[in-house]
Amino acid sequence: MLRQLLPRCGRALRAPASRTPYALPTLQRASRWYSIQPEAASVAKPLDIDPTKLSITKTQNPKTPKDPSELVFGREFTDHMLTIEWTKNDGWLTPTIQPYQNLSLDPATCVFHYAFECFEGMKAYRDSKGQIRLFRPDKNMERFNKSAARIALPTFSPTSLIDLIAKFVKLEERFIPDGRGYSLYLRPTLIGTQKTLGIGAPGSALLFVIASPVGPYYPTGFKAVSLEATDYAVRAWPGGVGDKKLGANYAPCIVPQMEAASRGFQQNLWLFGPEEYVTEVGTMNLFVAIRNKETNQKELITAPLDGTILGGITRDSILSLAREKLAPDGWLISERKITMPQLYEASLEGRLIEVFGAGTAAVVSPVRKISWKGKLVDCGLAENEESGEVANKMKTWIEARQYGDEEHEWSHIC
Amino acid sequence: MLRQLLPRCGRALRAPASRTPYALPTLQRASRWYSIQPEAASVAKPLDIDPTKLSITKTQNPKTPKDPSELVFGREFTDHMLTIEWTKNDGWLTPTIQPYQNLSLDPATCVFHYAFECFEGMKAYRDSKGQIRLFRPDKNMERFNKSAARIALPTFSPTSLIDLIAKFVKLEERFIPDGRGYSLYLRPTLIGTQKTLGIGAPGSALLFVIASPVGPYYPTGFKAVSLEATDYAVRAWPGGVGDKKLGANYAPCIVPQMEAASRGFQQNLWLFGPEEYVTEVGTMNLFVAIRNKETNQKELITAPLDGTILGGITRDSILSLAREKLAPDGWLISERKITMPQLYEASLEGRLIEVFGAGTAAVVSPVRKISWKGKLVDCGLAENEESGEVANKMKTWIEARQYGDEEHEWSHIC
Repeated sequence: MLRQLLPRCGRALRAPASRTPYALPTLQRASRWYSIQPEAASVAKPLDIDPTKLSITKTQNPKTPKDPSELVFGREFTDHMLTIEWTKNDGWLTPTIQPYQNLSLDPATCVFHYAFECFEGMKAYRDSKGQIRLFRPDKNMERFNKSAARIALPTFSPTSLIDLIAKFVKLEERFIPDGRGYSLYLRPTLIGTQKTLGIGAPGSALLFVIASPVGPYYPTGFKAVSLEATDYAVRAWPGGVGDKKLGANYAPCIVPQMEAASRGFQQNLWLFGPEEYVTEVGTMNLFVAIRNKETNQKELITAPLDGTILGGITRDSILSLAREKLAPDGWLISERKITMPQLYEASLEGRLIEVFGAGTAAVVSPVRKISWKGKLVDCGLAENEESGEVANKMKTWIEARQYGDEEHEWSHIC
Repeated sequence: MLRQLLPRCGRALRAPASRTPYALPTLQRASRWYSIQPEAASVAKPLDIDPTKLSITKTQNPKTPKDPSELVFGREFTDHMLTIEWTKNDGWLTPTIQPYQNLSLDPATCVFHYAFECFEGMKAYRDSKGQIRLFRPDKNMERFNKSAARIALPTFSPTSLIDLIAKFVKLEERFIPDGRGYSLYLRPTLIGTQKTLGIGAPGSALLFVIASPVGPYYPTGFKAVSLEATDYAVRAWPGGVGDKKLGANYAPCIVPQMEAASRGFQQNLWLFGPEEYVTEVGTMNLFVAIRNKETNQKELITAPLDGTILGGITRDSILSLAREKLAPDGWLISERKITMPQLYEASLEGRLIEVFGAGTAAVVSPVRKISWKGKLVDCGLAENEESGEVANKMKTWIEARQYGDEEHEWSHIC
């Protein structure tokens, strides 16, 4: 069973385990508006996804894949989509690959009103032998299930969905451009589809996967970005849902990002609390490489999984690679809190080696400066540099595993 | 222009004012994934909604309204829906009343992925003369615009939308049952409809209003509910978006509510911080009537608008009525923080007069007990009582204005 431990008291927060639905004999009508639906009890034990039942209907109008140089992230999609419906009575229904098409939904559907929606972002890569590979899909499935459970949507067998996604990707193989930096971005999405306005666990849901061919994030090499520290809005907090990949966490990020852009910064940097802990950059995790004031030891730091950041898979991969390849060279690898004043002090004292964001889209995204309280904090790059050494290495190391140049358990051949 | 002041530093958080879009000459491609779309700048000044252009297409298959005694909240809808599309280039397009029908949306539409969605809940009532009335619709429109601006969705003229909603309600008049407690629940909803996965301000949106006939929340008189205090999950945070009526705030509430229900409590009570401030009950505001320890003065308390609660219109109405009708009787009316330990102490000392939730659905919802840290806190009702005096009065006073028994500026005749 999925268990998500919460930072404040360590209690599991999930849909209550399957049990006889609690009867509210005299109060049932009175609590109609906010009532727990009987379907709640079935959320914990849906009939699982069965990939052997996959039904495929191919398009009659196949598209011509776009010229790879013209690809823009998330604008063009492949010919088909993978869909799996779920209902409280029957669990997961027949998985279907069908032509990419609009969803037709009643305007009362709960996804439009209460944000019953979560998603994943992952990529399929073509290796030098022409094989198609996924990168750590088990981590995406694990997070997808945790996100779903947190908003009372159904969970599923991770391996079954990976199996189906692999079949879907193979079918759309011709949309994956050759070459380093190219990939097929995959967007597994789960939405609640119950069409009533009462607030409760959805009695039906739809899981779908769409795919968009994408080009390299940095077509001509790294371009360092500058950030504006956001201290007037808070993205996430302990005990909240900022550590889940819910739609709910994204729409509120746009205005602070537009604010930053209006002053010439490409991204905003989310601070947290009176200590001004550095948490995330835009929708990426953040890494800071710093030299210790006393010992001079180099330390690679990223915020801990305390509920205020998303547990990124690129973040996890960078931590693993750093422990494997940087630690033997004397680096300290830390998941710990670091504050903006500490970062500023390190910069002033020349101890700030480099700063970079980490996410599926860019792998790593080097940072040049951070605007904070009227100061412009220098993040360690020379004027003619667009990235630091750690960012360079990480991109190379991760891509080697993504594109199968290095055989590794992180890479899943479809 | 809309301005929403934030608690921490009083800065306005909204879409940047219309200005030449900031050019990112060398970094534009690098920031593709998270980039600010050019459409962002137009969010601040859309062409406004024009109610004179309303186009009406009536259904060919009118429904027979359900027997009023069989109505369940938000399950049955009227014959038509009001829709208004918005695009970054053209602003608000022709308002349309058309047959109630499914929305057909590309699976990449941003409402499914990033929760670009906000809504309102309001009601239309039939008065004793047969006139149809809305209750404080200006307050709904004000909040709707604030919610929209916070997630980079377009805003609009409040009076224009009220005008259109009034026309829509008049058209659906036959669905509003006669009698106290019956009404037509209205759900204005605004969703982002841009069909790309890049995260930015949506370049298109759809505003729709659907209507559901509802019966009295308490068909046979008040039924007091019992609550479980939730200390392991946090609904809202200062600087977050918990004070906006965004879909994002609702899906995360279900699991804590199911947890409460699994232990026999109808609702959960959201606490905040180490002080355990009492904030909201389920998705209603909370009122506490208490007698002062020193002075014995009666005080009606509700949490202040500090970003951790939704500014409910029923909450605002209760505060107004309390200042108008209870204060002259010696009551102190307070928007201030109160902690769970303080509430517990008052209960032990017999100073807790009553506790009730407040929202559009129930108007007021009396509370019998609160489960908190293994204790069952008695909220002042006698065993044979289902509601306290203040709750009774408030329901009577508010309904008198909703149903037009008392002519008042809060009531808007359609």
